Amino acid sequence: MKSKHSLIARTLGLSATFLLLHNSVPVVAGEVEKAVEYRQGVMNVFSWNMKAMGDMMKGKTEFDKARFAAHAEELSNASKFKLMNGFPEDSESDESDALAEIWMDFEDFESKFQDFGSAAQALDKAAQGGDKGSMGAALKETGKSCKACHKKYKN
Amino acid sequence: MKSKHSLIARTLGLSATFLLLHNSVPVVAGEVEKAVEYRQGVMNVFSWNMKAMGDMMKGKTEFDKARFAAHAEELSNASKFKLMNGFPEDSESDESDALAEIWMDFEDFESKFQDFGSAAQALDKAAQGGDKGSMGAALKETGKSCKACHKKYKN
Repeated sequence: MKSKHSLIARTLGLSATFLLLHNSVPVVAGEVEKAVEYRQGVMNVFSWNMKAMGDMMKGKTEFDKARFAAHAEELSNASKFKLMNGFPEDSESDESDALAEIWMDFEDFESKFQDFGSAAQALDKAAQGGDKGSMGAALKETGKSCKACHKKYKN
Repeated sequence: MKSKHSLIARTLGLSATFLLLHNSVPVVAGEVEKAVEYRQGVMNVFSWNMKAMGDMMKGKTEFDKARFAAHAEELSNASKFKLMNGFPEDSESDESDALAEIWMDFEDFESKFQDFGSAAQALDKAAQGGDKGSMGAALKETGKSCKACHKKYKN
């Protein structure tokens, strides 16, 4: 049913949340909103740490092994969060860049998130090792895993 | 200087970000925006997990020890994030509920965040213990530590 509403909303160019709000189960809209806030929150944590490490590698900010390692550790820890809980079925929203394709092949979506987790954990390990070249390479791999998922599932 | 701009902006009822954007160091506005996204992201992770545990305790959703413990663990892990990095000096923004009082007594702000961390870690421990009463009590304490900080430092 939610999926149908969301399709109608897109067809009419209206907000799915609006339709849900004016439907029989108003609580659903609030739940979707909370889920969107959570998943975007986690993504912001990813992005914050990725950017800080990227800036160091690009020389935009001073390279500092300990600071890099702290960001890699935070990223790795956040990658272990139960982010998939933030994508309940058909939780599309005008506030979200998540594409409907996510729920058409959730297994693939989840597997891409696991790839990111593996890359983030390898980056954490490389950062602990302290070799700048390995850290750069591992950061690049992590970035690739972000893009692989965004390309398919993010607006 | 940032502080002065922000005061002027508030006096004129204008956006501090707007003033910063049209000033000599345009990169600052982008940095503030990123910091705001990060700190709000972390707060959303806190809120998502707190709400899930609260809903279980209130009987809004079914109480499930394992699910509760997973939320307590995620909260505890997120409480170890370097959230203070998301509050660079005078990073007020129209997109943020953070009050200027934060930077007037940053030590106190930081100490309140540490109190929250201790409470979240105690909650995680209680959740592992599996006694519902202790879990409820620890959740309540954690909620109190959120409120203690929001009361003083959140709009």
